[in-house]
Amino acid sequence: MQRFINNPDQVVEDTVRGFVKAHADILRLAQNPRVIVAKNAPIAGKVGVVTGGGSGHEPGFMGYTGKNMLDAVAVGELFSSPTAKSFHDAIREANGGAGVVCLYGNYAGDNMNVKMAIKLAAKDGIEVATVVANDDVCSAPPAEREKRRGVAGEIFMWKIGSAKASEGASLEEVRAIAQKAIDNCRSIGVGLGPCTLPAVGHPNFQIEPGTMEVGIGHHGEPGVRVEALKTAEEIAKDMCKIVLDDHNLPAGTEVAVLVSGLGATPLNELYILNDTIEKEIVGRGLVIHKTYVGNYFTSLEMVGATLTVLALDAEIKPLLDVEAACTIKL
Amino acid sequence: MQRFINNPDQVVEDTVRGFVKAHADILRLAQNPRVIVAKNAPIAGKVGVVTGGGSGHEPGFMGYTGKNMLDAVAVGELFSSPTAKSFHDAIREANGGAGVVCLYGNYAGDNMNVKMAIKLAAKDGIEVATVVANDDVCSAPPAEREKRRGVAGEIFMWKIGSAKASEGASLEEVRAIAQKAIDNCRSIGVGLGPCTLPAVGHPNFQIEPGTMEVGIGHHGEPGVRVEALKTAEEIAKDMCKIVLDDHNLPAGTEVAVLVSGLGATPLNELYILNDTIEKEIVGRGLVIHKTYVGNYFTSLEMVGATLTVLALDAEIKPLLDVEAACTIKL
Repeated sequence: MQRFINNPDQVVEDTVRGFVKAHADILRLAQNPRVIVAKNAPIAGKVGVVTGGGSGHEPGFMGYTGKNMLDAVAVGELFSSPTAKSFHDAIREANGGAGVVCLYGNYAGDNMNVKMAIKLAAKDGIEVATVVANDDVCSAPPAEREKRRGVAGEIFMWKIGSAKASEGASLEEVRAIAQKAIDNCRSIGVGLGPCTLPAVGHPNFQIEPGTMEVGIGHHGEPGVRVEALKTAEEIAKDMCKIVLDDHNLPAGTEVAVLVSGLGATPLNELYILNDTIEKEIVGRGLVIHKTYVGNYFTSLEMVGATLTVLALDAEIKPLLDVEAACTIKL
Repeated sequence: MQRFINNPDQVVEDTVRGFVKAHADILRLAQNPRVIVAKNAPIAGKVGVVTGGGSGHEPGFMGYTGKNMLDAVAVGELFSSPTAKSFHDAIREANGGAGVVCLYGNYAGDNMNVKMAIKLAAKDGIEVATVVANDDVCSAPPAEREKRRGVAGEIFMWKIGSAKASEGASLEEVRAIAQKAIDNCRSIGVGLGPCTLPAVGHPNFQIEPGTMEVGIGHHGEPGVRVEALKTAEEIAKDMCKIVLDDHNLPAGTEVAVLVSGLGATPLNELYILNDTIEKEIVGRGLVIHKTYVGNYFTSLEMVGATLTVLALDAEIKPLLDVEAACTIKL
């Protein structure tokens, strides 16, 4: 992999510095250089909304900081959880006196560090509620949904939770709507090519040319099968089948659709996938309210794409539509 | 290259279909399936703003259609000019009776087809003005600026020209401000890895691992030199030197900065470049008003990045800041 980097061990420092410079209109760096804070945060009386996760998924996680979006984000090393201290500092930065909700993905390191951060925040007198995203269908069977990983569905959880908080809702109300948002999400990833951590220098998993991995995780976690690379149409149909069979939504349900590249897949290919995805979703009698296509949640230079389908209802839909200002169009 | 495609000869058809489905809230397909039109276009009495170019550069060109942005875009085959008919149809779709300005890049095919389209439009009684973008510094020496290619600076030209048109300016006023916008732009590209046209199946140019090409064009056109791959900091300094030496702006000038990936470069690496780019620009006494970092103008799965610096003045700055609604945050 040919890269624009300096010291491979300082990729995150360099990224964060360049990121904060680019987006100083909407965010700032906290005293802890691993915490990004919305420019207007904390807002007195508003529930703070926080997330955190490993780097290498840009614009996830830090790119979703902003107005009517996340108040603070804890930044981890590449593909590693932020420290408990960083989660704790993010919580403090977001605290406007009405409690803080931490909306994060189901990974062992994040679970552990958020738990520790909550204990530290309790000493500051800050009440913290959590929602753990588990939208990645292929990472565990339906009966063990709580074991599933959190992936791009987190973006919907953040947007809907943040919009609710901006309305002046209570900590419990914000937690509940964020929980509902992620409960209403199902995602799947398909990998066509691996990625390499710069400091390691070789891919941390393999995808042989001519094959693809269906159900792959954002760090190359194994999916449900490796098979011969198919056409975009066949792949999109597979992705929809896996997501929608698990979702099992009644006809007429309105949905939001997110097709994200994993880093090195050209945008035109994501649109090619979307052409079939739309057909499949509409073919099941569902109604697409909004579609997002782009690099929303990536994994360094992984070649591949994810599909997330969010089921809307009268409560969630207007919150999804609340205008937000972060680093990417939502 | 592992890809999400169907028939390699139908990549553009499939892309456009999936694109229009994703963005039906702001745009539509014309009767000519190679013309994308803003949903509210044409606007009676407003100067229409049109562009067109080869596909494979998504979100350029089609992604910049929208409100206070382009009224219509002609879509070409991968890396090929749209036909004269498509440019003509785009002009007709954008025509609100006050004339149409066609803001496009300096490539032989586009020049020829726009000229033919203007003749066809004249028969319809539509007056068409043009601005030809030539912001790519390394494609010709300063004395032959009119020979330079148009690259990501086109985005600034479109945004500023479109904002002026939305204010109700005349055709000549819109042409003049778009010309000024591109005159105030300088860009450079650095390539770390080539791309492959799906129907061809092998890269249309080579970049040997361990090397990079400075000044490369959006289709692999040769740059000023091939050299050993350097650190992001060194590369960013080189990019700034080439752009800013050519620009030769007085200290105190306000600028907008656009760092775009070429398709397969992870977003975090663009931020790493931006960290040094910001230092270099500020180091020259320039004042950064706004920074854009992302995949704004790509070349399939090319690995690389471009830098564009736009000099602002009292006329251009407020137009850049006019809110626009297209498929990407601007």
